[in-house]
Amino acid sequence: MPAEIINGKKISDDIKSELKAEIDKLKNQGIVPGLAAVLVGDNPASALYVKMKARACEKIGIYSEVIKRDNSSTHQQMVELVNELNQRQDIDGILVQSPLPDHIDEPGITFLIDPKKDVDGFHPVNQGLLLAGRPQFEPATPMGIVEILERSGHNPSGKNVVILGRGFLVGRPLSVMLSTKTKRTNATVTICHTGTPNISDFTKKADIIVAAMGKALFLKGDMIKPGAVIIDVGTNQIDDPGHPKGKRLVGDVDFDSVKDIAGAITPVPGGVGPMTIAAILKNTVKACKTRHDLI
Amino acid sequence: MPAEIINGKKISDDIKSELKAEIDKLKNQGIVPGLAAVLVGDNPASALYVKMKARACEKIGIYSEVIKRDNSSTHQQMVELVNELNQRQDIDGILVQSPLPDHIDEPGITFLIDPKKDVDGFHPVNQGLLLAGRPQFEPATPMGIVEILERSGHNPSGKNVVILGRGFLVGRPLSVMLSTKTKRTNATVTICHTGTPNISDFTKKADIIVAAMGKALFLKGDMIKPGAVIIDVGTNQIDDPGHPKGKRLVGDVDFDSVKDIAGAITPVPGGVGPMTIAAILKNTVKACKTRHDLI
Repeated sequence: MPAEIINGKKISDDIKSELKAEIDKLKNQGIVPGLAAVLVGDNPASALYVKMKARACEKIGIYSEVIKRDNSSTHQQMVELVNELNQRQDIDGILVQSPLPDHIDEPGITFLIDPKKDVDGFHPVNQGLLLAGRPQFEPATPMGIVEILERSGHNPSGKNVVILGRGFLVGRPLSVMLSTKTKRTNATVTICHTGTPNISDFTKKADIIVAAMGKALFLKGDMIKPGAVIIDVGTNQIDDPGHPKGKRLVGDVDFDSVKDIAGAITPVPGGVGPMTIAAILKNTVKACKTRHDLI
Repeated sequence: MPAEIINGKKISDDIKSELKAEIDKLKNQGIVPGLAAVLVGDNPASALYVKMKARACEKIGIYSEVIKRDNSSTHQQMVELVNELNQRQDIDGILVQSPLPDHIDEPGITFLIDPKKDVDGFHPVNQGLLLAGRPQFEPATPMGIVEILERSGHNPSGKNVVILGRGFLVGRPLSVMLSTKTKRTNATVTICHTGTPNISDFTKKADIIVAAMGKALFLKGDMIKPGAVIIDVGTNQIDDPGHPKGKRLVGDVDFDSVKDIAGAITPVPGGVGPMTIAAILKNTVKACKTRHDLI
């Protein structure tokens, strides 16, 4: 039986509709949530991503401001910009689009963002509260994965979850989140990585696999258990002479090889990607409500 | 063949000797590391633990100061005390012995400790840097476990490690530390807990098991693979009519049932316990050297 294709676009639209209803209520009280995105340099992927976030904000009524700086911006100028955004009353969330130019100390800049406006969930204080089991702002992609599992009817509680990849953005925080005791997490989590000699031994027993190691088409059908739920976080460009652009976007999962064995799978694109943006919007509304003592 | 008994006392003594040599060098430069321990109220276990830490400091040449406050101390008095210790030039590390009385906001006090003096590794900034893979001060018990594995010749790199328990003090941070890519970690880590339906399925495949769920004698011989390395973090008092005191201290591992199947095991007491204190001493020397720009 072919796997259920989990529609991340549809689920993220549901979340956005819920957020829009919340924002409409806030507006009735004269409150408009605001998100500032800082874009340094001319990396086209970064520019596209910031634009997508800004557009998503506007659609649901979040005030959005994109602040562009050129590549020659100094570390001190970035410090001043972040300090200013920390103070602004119309801004609830601050995103500094990664990567920053090499001459800017990126972790240093992240550290300066007010943790109460850190809607990316990358500030050490927010990462620390997450590890301590008292999360304030969870990082966006892992948060989107928890949402997509719950909302697609694949609650991980009590399940055997295998995460492939131990990266800072997904694998590490997700392993902590999914093993936490909440109604929508509470999974037994194994984190596999380049140091795991026999990854198939783990994936073949998993009820849910999250592929987030950044290796195109890594997870094959013969590595999974029939009926497993597969969450594909990968976004890899591969050469494809048959494609009009000569290349195409694929995940960390070999979709064609997995699709008749898995029980459910997220596509790339249209799976986890839209969930990440929805999570940032959700964090922004939370930041706004927290700042106005409405939570 | 009976399991090797891993001597945590001996290994912690080795670490203390190394630290003493470092401290002697610092003293030649006129520098004495200092550790302040704050003890509130009259909990006998807390008092004993603070005393053990103070004595360990003195033995290797760390200046130790125990600051006692009675149970009626206010939150504001604790705030002032921590601020004073943050400022003091003779104090490199600050420990606030848990638990504090209920009327004091314990996470709030932890948050006030200068992260550079947080030798317990409990401050959200230090927890966050740990999760982000850029640790400054690691929490003491997990750090002691990494040390005891390495120094007893059971390096977990490439091994299948199962952690039992997802607590804030051990399981959660240890899962992050052991899966990180370093020469002495880099393990494939599974975290099991009360939400895991079939713990034996995981423990029977593990090369290394860390038992840290706080259930007396939970892990039995029939739950492990022959030759597995067992790290017992539990400290539970159980009734024992045959014991002079009518009770005795046992771990989370049923030592007698495991000892002829495991390859190696830490005893309780004398296993992980002494390692925790050694880790705090190590963090104190690190804090001192960092503050004097010697690292």
